[in-house]
Amino acid sequence: MDDDMEGGNLGPYQDRPRTFPSMKSKAYAPWIFRVLMRINSRILLLLLLVCFGAIFYIGASTSPIIVFVFSVCIISFFVSIYLTKWVLAKDEGPPEMSEISDAIRDGAEGFFRTQYGTISKMALLLGLVILGIYLFRTITPQQEASGLGRATSAYITVAAFLFGALCSGVAGYVGMWVSVRANVRVSSAARRSAREALQIAVRAGGFSALVVVGMAVMGVAILYAILYVWFQVDSTGTMKATDLPLLLVGYGFGASFVALFAQLGGGIYTKAADVGADLVGKVEQGIPEDDPRNPAVIADLVGDNVGDCAARGADLFESIAAEIISAMILGGTMAQRCKIEDPSGFILFPLVVHSFDLVVSSVGIFSIRNKRDSGVIGTIEDPMRTLEKGYSVTIFLAVLTFGLSTRWLLYTEQAPSAWLNFALCGLVGIVTAYVFVWISKYYTDYKYEPVRTLALASSTGHGTNIIAGVSLGLESTALPVLVISLAIVSAFWLGRTSGLTDEAGNPTGGLFGTAVATMGMLSTAAYVLTMDMFGPIADNAGGIVEMSQQPESVREITDVLDAVGNTTKATTKGFAIGSAALASFLLFSAYMDEVAAFAQESFKQVDIAIPEVFVGGLLGSMLIFLFSAWACAAVGRTAQEVVNEVRRQFIERPGIMDYKEKPDYGRCVSIVASASLREMIKPGALAIISPTVVGFLFRILGYYTGHPLLGAKVVASMLMFATVSGILMALFLNTAGGAWDNAKKYIETGALGGKGSDTHKAAVTGDTVGDPFKDTAGPSLHVLIKMLATITLVMAPIFL
Amino acid sequence: MDDDMEGGNLGPYQDRPRTFPSMKSKAYAPWIFRVLMRINSRILLLLLLVCFGAIFYIGASTSPIIVFVFSVCIISFFVSIYLTKWVLAKDEGPPEMSEISDAIRDGAEGFFRTQYGTISKMALLLGLVILGIYLFRTITPQQEASGLGRATSAYITVAAFLFGALCSGVAGYVGMWVSVRANVRVSSAARRSAREALQIAVRAGGFSALVVVGMAVMGVAILYAILYVWFQVDSTGTMKATDLPLLLVGYGFGASFVALFAQLGGGIYTKAADVGADLVGKVEQGIPEDDPRNPAVIADLVGDNVGDCAARGADLFESIAAEIISAMILGGTMAQRCKIEDPSGFILFPLVVHSFDLVVSSVGIFSIRNKRDSGVIGTIEDPMRTLEKGYSVTIFLAVLTFGLSTRWLLYTEQAPSAWLNFALCGLVGIVTAYVFVWISKYYTDYKYEPVRTLALASSTGHGTNIIAGVSLGLESTALPVLVISLAIVSAFWLGRTSGLTDEAGNPTGGLFGTAVATMGMLSTAAYVLTMDMFGPIADNAGGIVEMSQQPESVREITDVLDAVGNTTKATTKGFAIGSAALASFLLFSAYMDEVAAFAQESFKQVDIAIPEVFVGGLLGSMLIFLFSAWACAAVGRTAQEVVNEVRRQFIERPGIMDYKEKPDYGRCVSIVASASLREMIKPGALAIISPTVVGFLFRILGYYTGHPLLGAKVVASMLMFATVSGILMALFLNTAGGAWDNAKKYIETGALGGKGSDTHKAAVTGDTVGDPFKDTAGPSLHVLIKMLATITLVMAPIFL
Repeated sequence: MDDDMEGGNLGPYQDRPRTFPSMKSKAYAPWIFRVLMRINSRILLLLLLVCFGAIFYIGASTSPIIVFVFSVCIISFFVSIYLTKWVLAKDEGPPEMSEISDAIRDGAEGFFRTQYGTISKMALLLGLVILGIYLFRTITPQQEASGLGRATSAYITVAAFLFGALCSGVAGYVGMWVSVRANVRVSSAARRSAREALQIAVRAGGFSALVVVGMAVMGVAILYAILYVWFQVDSTGTMKATDLPLLLVGYGFGASFVALFAQLGGGIYTKAADVGADLVGKVEQGIPEDDPRNPAVIADLVGDNVGDCAARGADLFESIAAEIISAMILGGTMAQRCKIEDPSGFILFPLVVHSFDLVVSSVGIFSIRNKRDSGVIGTIEDPMRTLEKGYSVTIFLAVLTFGLSTRWLLYTEQAPSAWLNFALCGLVGIVTAYVFVWISKYYTDYKYEPVRTLALASSTGHGTNIIAGVSLGLESTALPVLVISLAIVSAFWLGRTSGLTDEAGNPTGGLFGTAVATMGMLSTAAYVLTMDMFGPIADNAGGIVEMSQQPESVREITDVLDAVGNTTKATTKGFAIGSAALASFLLFSAYMDEVAAFAQESFKQVDIAIPEVFVGGLLGSMLIFLFSAWACAAVGRTAQEVVNEVRRQFIERPGIMDYKEKPDYGRCVSIVASASLREMIKPGALAIISPTVVGFLFRILGYYTGHPLLGAKVVASMLMFATVSGILMALFLNTAGGAWDNAKKYIETGALGGKGSDTHKAAVTGDTVGDPFKDTAGPSLHVLIKMLATITLVMAPIFL
Repeated sequence: MDDDMEGGNLGPYQDRPRTFPSMKSKAYAPWIFRVLMRINSRILLLLLLVCFGAIFYIGASTSPIIVFVFSVCIISFFVSIYLTKWVLAKDEGPPEMSEISDAIRDGAEGFFRTQYGTISKMALLLGLVILGIYLFRTITPQQEASGLGRATSAYITVAAFLFGALCSGVAGYVGMWVSVRANVRVSSAARRSAREALQIAVRAGGFSALVVVGMAVMGVAILYAILYVWFQVDSTGTMKATDLPLLLVGYGFGASFVALFAQLGGGIYTKAADVGADLVGKVEQGIPEDDPRNPAVIADLVGDNVGDCAARGADLFESIAAEIISAMILGGTMAQRCKIEDPSGFILFPLVVHSFDLVVSSVGIFSIRNKRDSGVIGTIEDPMRTLEKGYSVTIFLAVLTFGLSTRWLLYTEQAPSAWLNFALCGLVGIVTAYVFVWISKYYTDYKYEPVRTLALASSTGHGTNIIAGVSLGLESTALPVLVISLAIVSAFWLGRTSGLTDEAGNPTGGLFGTAVATMGMLSTAAYVLTMDMFGPIADNAGGIVEMSQQPESVREITDVLDAVGNTTKATTKGFAIGSAALASFLLFSAYMDEVAAFAQESFKQVDIAIPEVFVGGLLGSMLIFLFSAWACAAVGRTAQEVVNEVRRQFIERPGIMDYKEKPDYGRCVSIVASASLREMIKPGALAIISPTVVGFLFRILGYYTGHPLLGAKVVASMLMFATVSGILMALFLNTAGGAWDNAKKYIETGALGGKGSDTHKAAVTGDTVGDPFKDTAGPSLHVLIKMLATITLVMAPIFL
């Protein structure tokens, strides 16, 4: 931070005790924004129009479906601009609020810059490695026949990878950009009306959700259209439309690569600051959360933005991209097998589903309005109910549009009722998502039995609280697994019985049915992401209210919003895992197809009775455990550094506690920032290097023991075991963390002795332990699962 | 306990403050012992001789190898009788010691009786179910050809099951029987010499180790010999010796069935009492561990016996039985494929390895002698070094005898150098065991980095201690997995290149190589079990010393022994998991062979690319998480009951803290006993019912979707995923628990503030959390993994 703050010039601080010191704001924008801002606005508009024109031209030469997708994306782009204008038009509140908000923005943008600097260097390096691999690999006969040379394939893959990485980075930036601006506006609005505060938080979240989902759809659509036109798919007939989706895999890998590091770095940042601040502030000194006297409080508030907003944006972007691409690959493969005349409907179906997602989610977002009549200060209605009402609207519309899309795109004369089966698959997905959300709520909301039992366990001490939380988390994996199992089996069965058959008459629609279910699950992704983003914005707003010492009634409003944010965060995590499980299973099938194409032999089975394949499975599961260990340990270690720094400041500046001396917020921010950048490398590198190394080693072993494709088989089993273990571990970590958090909140409502009791202290310990579980390791695992699936697809040439 | 204690007759208690009140001892022995005791000793001797004669007669009609095995087992039986006589000849110390010991014995025997009563009822019920299943199943053509009717096969399986269950029960009883007698003798000896105390604990452990291993070997050998003679294997030629081992599977299932409930019940008992006692005693009241004022202290000491001694006896018994049977099946299958003329060497090899195990472990046990010269009170040498010296002797001899056994039994003219390869496989196993022990020591001993880092994390509070412990545990899975992976691949490769080929010239020895490595790993099982049993005996002795208020110097001796016991317990757990992993992989292969035989078609692949099979894997991993959850939750819930009871007593009898009033020990004992019996049912039933139900449901689904063998495939994948997840989860739970325990011990040595500091309090929380991890859920998972493998083998007819 700036010199004024560190120098000890306490003049204004002492004059206005019990509030936060002034902090200068440094404006920051990535260079691309700065360049764009210098250009004359008319020229910019012209450029934009030319871009849109080019995109539409390419789209029109590809398929009317692509034109539809582009149109929807561009409209939703304008909707998101309207949303952000609406949010930014709100007032920033009194100067003490905007000062705090500026400090948070500085910290967040500073970290973002350094973090994404590191990530982009790594992405460039990895891009070079991929280029090297693809330039020296053998290509498949199909590729040769289609005129796709080795070099072309290499450049396309690398370009797609870098494009995916860039989009993922932008998605993260957008998430953070809006949250650091919306937080203070929510705080300010909370002084007037709960409903207005809610509306601002929702619209800010909605802006980034629409951008993230729109960009994922747009990115894939543009890549597809460009490749389609470039290879003249329709005219020459050498390259088939069904071959295109496999070339997009690099895009998915780029997205998940960036998302993984964004989630790791941001997750470590936010929780190390949070745990460190709580351990000294709440537990040792007994001051409230977000108290201005705590030197780590700004770092904590910065963390919400870089950890939750930026990282979750990148995470969901990557989820949708991976899911679209895998579904396109499967749709293409199936259309080819069934000899469907125009396969474009099956290939482009996921893009249309997500276009409708943008439409229905926008409706859901706008359905949350500012009711003037009930907007009196003090009367707080339950914001959860408002959000759920919006969700119901969205889901209802999603069911309609999903049915519409299946009838439009998946109707084929070969199997006239197939579209109906697929619509049912979509319904399976939507229901699964709904049940998932309900299960997470059951295990993490203190209205229900599990969290109450956990709170009760706190009354017998720290130890029983932790034991009960761990068991709750482990137990909570059961229902989601049963639901997802049922969804996989029933969607597969619906797909199989759709009537689509290959030449030999075998039913082939099973896997595509699972893919459609996944799309159904993600068909309200933008609204879910909105609810998710809402959480950290509300949390930050609460922090600003607390730090600027607003009256109790204002704090009450932001507290309620914050609590709702905790629940929505927990439920959307369940959602993210469910879709990760399904997407990963789809990508696994795509991997099998790819290996078969390369090896020019059938590769349909991964036989776990072979010792090496079993070993691959062991290594895959182990990877999940080790990754989680390193992610949690990183938080623990960084938090210890924060604790020591905060303790040091309390000792060296005894006046802090009486508001007579100023804590050095900047040191905590920089300690956390540098530590989390350092700590994100080890688990991230593990995730990227280990499948590659294992595949390569077993390929060599297979070569010497006369076992063809051993490397590819071992990696396949590694991937499957990692997926299964990853799903369970992520469910465990997220639910345990959420439950601990809410058990503490339940006790803070006055139950079992209330705040300050021994029971509450034990519950705070659980909450601290749950922090890295639910916000660092857990969400990183969602990304890891999908990144493993995409990395095996991209790195497959090494194993073969 | 008795009325005198509960009635409040405080006379003698008040006269002798700071010591424990008198408690009447009730003699208890199972009815079979009572019947035997009533018979005249000469008649008993005669009966015994007749039994031995019959056994030898049957053995002699089978194979000279069986005679050798019988002889060694009987000799080691006499050795174990010598050991127990030697231990029992030691004095029981002053009356205050033997009174406490009597109370512990009462509690332990009372619980054992009730627990095994419940278990035996369940075993009988399950026996009936198995009978029903087998009476209605179809039999294989081979079985039909060999004259094995449906009814015969059913009766054999059920009889083997019940016999296995009985033996497992006896193994548990023996473990507990000796420990409740040795504990007080160790306490008494600790007043004289550290070395003598060590020797008594080791010999007592050795007694039960020899009985457990001997019984496992003897049981299988007797069953094999009886079946061999019954079916006239040599003369008629219809039933081949290679078919026999598959009939023994019921024995393994019976053993693991009992072991699972023994471990669950005992594990819940011991840790609920321990956690409950610590939470109020150590944390809230600040009184030392095992203080006589703590009402839960007797329950805690009883727990060591029923949880660690009885359960671990049953656990290791089951390990060895499962491993012997699976290796016999694989040896037989391989011998048959390679058309080896006399397959008995390959089939009976595991029995011989474990016979030598009895011999070399006895030598190791006797190598720990009472050196008169250094036996002065006060000079405590490091008992760990003494135990390790004994282990080195045992391992050295095991390598020699293992080489000898391979040359003797695995030499075949078809592949003259095969035995050498198999000897190397054994060496791989022995080295793996050694490395495993080393890795567990590295992660749990406070001499090394990990535990020191964990202790340091306690200095920043309860939260960081738990986070650091969880990450340590998760991380500690990596090295063992790498080692076990290397062992599987290299043993498989050694076996493959042994020169043994089937008719078509394909190398076939791979899996048997892995089996031999497993045997190598378990080739010092009796010594390892001795070290393991040593722990709880020393722990109990320490408790008795503390409760009877012996001088500081005596307590120092038992404290050192206790600490060593903690390390040996942790290391033998690593060992148990390693062998479980390998044994489970072998049983999996046996399952595939069995399914193939029933289905009369090749069943070589379990293809995880099929959605249902993937779902099976998900369910398998989920089973592990849910089982661990329920095991931990059971401890937490029961501990809470204990906490409330102990708090109640402290409030209602305020004189307890000044030794003026007597705590009601009996109530705690009975609360823990009834709770743990209740709580063991749910996880146990889950483990038994879920694979059966899943297999049956998918069999039906497969029937309706035209997918043959679907049930069998789904169960296979369930088994594999459960094994992998189970290994990792068990490693995580055991290591985290051990590390927390020792981090606390490290701080108690005076590091980081020492006893009573805030750091110590945080470390105690970690220790409490670790208790159910390392002594309930973790060890139960070892058993679960193998039980799943045997249950799928036995229940296979349901899935087909």
